[in-house]
Amino acid sequence: MNIKTICILGAGTLGSRVALQSALSGYEVRVYDLTQKALDFSLNTMKKILHQLVKAGQLEEKTVPEVLGRIEFTLDPKRAVENADFINESVTEEIEVKKKVWKQFGELAPEKTWFTTNTSYLLPSMFAEESGRPSRFCAFHFHDVFYSRVVDIMPHPGTDPQMIPMLEELGRKLNQVPVLVKKENPGYIFNTMLMALIGAAGKLLTKEVASIEDVDRSWMVNFHMPMGPFGILDSIGLDTAWHVTHKLPDAASQAFAKLLKEEYLNHGKLGEKSGEGFYNYPHPAYKAKDFIL
Amino acid sequence: MNIKTICILGAGTLGSRVALQSALSGYEVRVYDLTQKALDFSLNTMKKILHQLVKAGQLEEKTVPEVLGRIEFTLDPKRAVENADFINESVTEEIEVKKKVWKQFGELAPEKTWFTTNTSYLLPSMFAEESGRPSRFCAFHFHDVFYSRVVDIMPHPGTDPQMIPMLEELGRKLNQVPVLVKKENPGYIFNTMLMALIGAAGKLLTKEVASIEDVDRSWMVNFHMPMGPFGILDSIGLDTAWHVTHKLPDAASQAFAKLLKEEYLNHGKLGEKSGEGFYNYPHPAYKAKDFIL
Repeated sequence: MNIKTICILGAGTLGSRVALQSALSGYEVRVYDLTQKALDFSLNTMKKILHQLVKAGQLEEKTVPEVLGRIEFTLDPKRAVENADFINESVTEEIEVKKKVWKQFGELAPEKTWFTTNTSYLLPSMFAEESGRPSRFCAFHFHDVFYSRVVDIMPHPGTDPQMIPMLEELGRKLNQVPVLVKKENPGYIFNTMLMALIGAAGKLLTKEVASIEDVDRSWMVNFHMPMGPFGILDSIGLDTAWHVTHKLPDAASQAFAKLLKEEYLNHGKLGEKSGEGFYNYPHPAYKAKDFIL
Repeated sequence: MNIKTICILGAGTLGSRVALQSALSGYEVRVYDLTQKALDFSLNTMKKILHQLVKAGQLEEKTVPEVLGRIEFTLDPKRAVENADFINESVTEEIEVKKKVWKQFGELAPEKTWFTTNTSYLLPSMFAEESGRPSRFCAFHFHDVFYSRVVDIMPHPGTDPQMIPMLEELGRKLNQVPVLVKKENPGYIFNTMLMALIGAAGKLLTKEVASIEDVDRSWMVNFHMPMGPFGILDSIGLDTAWHVTHKLPDAASQAFAKLLKEEYLNHGKLGEKSGEGFYNYPHPAYKAKDFIL
């Protein structure tokens, strides 16, 4: 593996984090998106994280300009992939959008470029062909890069097996813990388990077995964790949670999706980012000292 | 509430822990079981925990004799409930056994005694009538008392509602965090969620999506936890896990139960207690420094 330049397609929250970690690990980075507004958001996101890393003593302040100096933001697709060794794509989570983007960049990218997608719930086989080089195409899926450091490596049936050790090595260089998803699976490994946990919590609520607080309290106290399933849902965003849940066919998921929509989304309650969800922010009850009596 | 004497029926691992915490909280305790061997095991279990508490600086060594002095072990059912204010039952997890025990102690116990069961997966309504006083009968379910300190309060439809605040108060006095299970639910709150997590992990394994290690790694790294689902299963015991899983009707649970039976139970691999399960003990791979690369 001889990767020097990494191209990030899609400058949202996750793309920006992967781009920043790539620069922190010494790679030259190009960040591409469709609007200047998106690129400005991305730079802002990175600056906030860098500030936190400095504050936590994980990074020296004087290296910040050097790190940012390795990142180029561009609206020009040609420049984005010029001489790029590696692409990680984090564009909108819709099949048609991903197909279009991969067709465009499959044509523009140099022959040497490896292709990876950061899709959360889609499968790489759904748009690998569009890239024109499915054997060099694999899912390489990050969580939040800095706190949750798992990176899922999920090949589709046509992926060249030699990509796997290459991605394991790159994952470690990016300060992540690589895990292998041997078969295509929506939700990879961690999200599959997290969704099962959240589904069980949702069912306890819709069946009126327990309160939001007692569900979270049970998880937090027994596992010594800083938040429970409903606190986690607030941090994921209730719109995202609804998006995933309402597509699941079982009765319990449908009941929980209905509750999310009618009692939260329809009232603008999207979780932490909107200031209200299962809890009120910025000081949710579960963080109060008397939550666990 | 005026509880002074607590009677523990069943001197197994959980009963012994509840008994010990009751003595630590200042209550007079009677521990009842059918054989002297069981009572000897119980005293031994308590001594080990007391030793750990002293080592961890949570208890002064000189108070140990005083704590143990508040606990009386007996094979005599009459003495076990003599003047007892409260019973917590942790006998074998079989309906017929529980029915028999509650019929016996319902007749022996003084009129004032409150009845509670520590059943893990059965429901209080399945044997409340046998006690002769269903309105004074409720599930009061501990986890491991010392590390996982949730206590579930789960009334059956005939439980007198005034038992709930009484049990909340007692739970806090026993250094637990009480949660209310508003309707009977097998697995209460925490175990319902834990089983969903374990079910998802089992499915990832039987479907050959990921390895045991990568499943645990994903959970441990993203949530900063000391063990993942398969490490947890080893600590619960694979026989117990099979006992719960093989009763679930869905195909995924059946496949996981089959794997547990054929690849582990049939070879005497019961998890941590037998020295081998998903990992080898006393030094399982997931505790090694290089597990998370």
